[in-house]
Amino acid sequence: MNPIGIISMSYARPFTAQHLPLMQRIKACDLDFIEMLVPEPGEIAIGKLRVAIEDAGLAVALAARMNPKRDPTSDDPVSRKEGREYLRRCVDVAVALGARIVGGPIYGAPLVFAGRAPAPVDEKKRQARIDWAAEALAEAGVYAASLDVVLAVEPLNRFETDMVNTGRQAVELIRKARAPGLGVMLDTFHMNMEEADLFEAIKGVGKHLVHFQANENHRGFLGTGHIDWATVCHGLAAVQYKGPITLEPFRRDDDRIGVPLAQWRAPTRDEDRDIRKSAGLLRRFLEAAGT
Amino acid sequence: MNPIGIISMSYARPFTAQHLPLMQRIKACDLDFIEMLVPEPGEIAIGKLRVAIEDAGLAVALAARMNPKRDPTSDDPVSRKEGREYLRRCVDVAVALGARIVGGPIYGAPLVFAGRAPAPVDEKKRQARIDWAAEALAEAGVYAASLDVVLAVEPLNRFETDMVNTGRQAVELIRKARAPGLGVMLDTFHMNMEEADLFEAIKGVGKHLVHFQANENHRGFLGTGHIDWATVCHGLAAVQYKGPITLEPFRRDDDRIGVPLAQWRAPTRDEDRDIRKSAGLLRRFLEAAGT
Repeated sequence: MNPIGIISMSYARPFTAQHLPLMQRIKACDLDFIEMLVPEPGEIAIGKLRVAIEDAGLAVALAARMNPKRDPTSDDPVSRKEGREYLRRCVDVAVALGARIVGGPIYGAPLVFAGRAPAPVDEKKRQARIDWAAEALAEAGVYAASLDVVLAVEPLNRFETDMVNTGRQAVELIRKARAPGLGVMLDTFHMNMEEADLFEAIKGVGKHLVHFQANENHRGFLGTGHIDWATVCHGLAAVQYKGPITLEPFRRDDDRIGVPLAQWRAPTRDEDRDIRKSAGLLRRFLEAAGT
Repeated sequence: MNPIGIISMSYARPFTAQHLPLMQRIKACDLDFIEMLVPEPGEIAIGKLRVAIEDAGLAVALAARMNPKRDPTSDDPVSRKEGREYLRRCVDVAVALGARIVGGPIYGAPLVFAGRAPAPVDEKKRQARIDWAAEALAEAGVYAASLDVVLAVEPLNRFETDMVNTGRQAVELIRKARAPGLGVMLDTFHMNMEEADLFEAIKGVGKHLVHFQANENHRGFLGTGHIDWATVCHGLAAVQYKGPITLEPFRRDDDRIGVPLAQWRAPTRDEDRDIRKSAGLLRRFLEAAGT
């Protein structure tokens, strides 16, 4: 069965040395790996992080994050260069940690989290951005492949990026990059907004699928929203997906008016029981689908 | 059966005198009303707009829009005042056009479309914003009720506002305002992201529901996405909703990489046939649910 893990942001952001004991707790939740946000320089000693992960018997995947200062599709050539260098650094961190997968919106073009409003993109600029993204991915993919790492292109919803919103577009982008070391990842939170059909979207990515994130429509714990997990898991079975599946339950069960739901918030209570139940529900559906 | 209409933005934005012949085309699509963005001053002569709508045999509803310069929950008292004045003007436009409903995120706090990133809101500020919103709605509601107009509070998804994201929160806000002339509207596009259960969300709003927008998860034409229309229409039947239902199909069937999906784009072809099919599909589900 697919390894099931959880994102570091479910516990802390930034994730620092004081959070290393969490690895044992994650293992005790019957989880198989932690997906770490690629640590920013100075946040945590990579060697100690690796030891804590291995001591707990966990595996590790990485999540890359772009911003306006490191964005492979920025108008600013300095930012494009920083974006490409960041991808190289992500691969280095993966090697240092023993991770095989670095996923995320590695083509850039952040919107709401960069305080950027959607704006028209003319055809010339659209083509330029596709070229910039494909070049950055090709360069990073070759480097990643040489070190046995895979970079996973993640489509995000229309409010988080105006670059790649669907699995089909992610496949088109890596085909354009024509390089080793590149794959596609999907996240049901974004799919729920942008894909016409969850099953067909997974089938369309097919053999390119190298990573997956299982999130409810509202980012609550699995089974508390309306994502059709049977359909999702049958899709994963149809493409014979054996890879990791990450949980990212961020909602915090906070339904008060005026709480910024999209803004990261630390947990306010021990969520281990709910996390364990989410993983258990997912495992039952994966089992039923025969992945 | 519920009147079914379409938003003016499906055709043009801004909607000006040159677009008035569209009213006849909308009627020819078997639609019952147009939902107009409340015209900004100088965009169109309200008298001529009313004549064109009535000549076509259509009814009309209005959609209000806040922005950082007119936002009832802004930190800036000038913006809060402008927000309250804008709500009064919306009611005046409704009276001038013969509209009964003015809906939208009339509590303000825009995010992505205002280029504002989600940010922490401390408890004091959260309470202040709730008070400001409730006061603005109470004042506007009393004015609206005196002129037989209803203001409909619309929850938006987490990327479009950090104020009201669910039907339950919208009901809580109008209860806090304790004024006549206030109701709640729901949009399945936002519900798909924020509600745990579409049926229960509609039931929770119940008798407060005064307006509804039927949109696919990806804002394409109805039936091309994964919104469960049977569940939605059974929810509407369960609360005996007899009011208007608006279509807002903005996706434009444009699946190219790097097209800003969240950014408004004009139609690129005659969509009448798809609009007519969307309304037809919705009518069959409403009929089956017995609304």
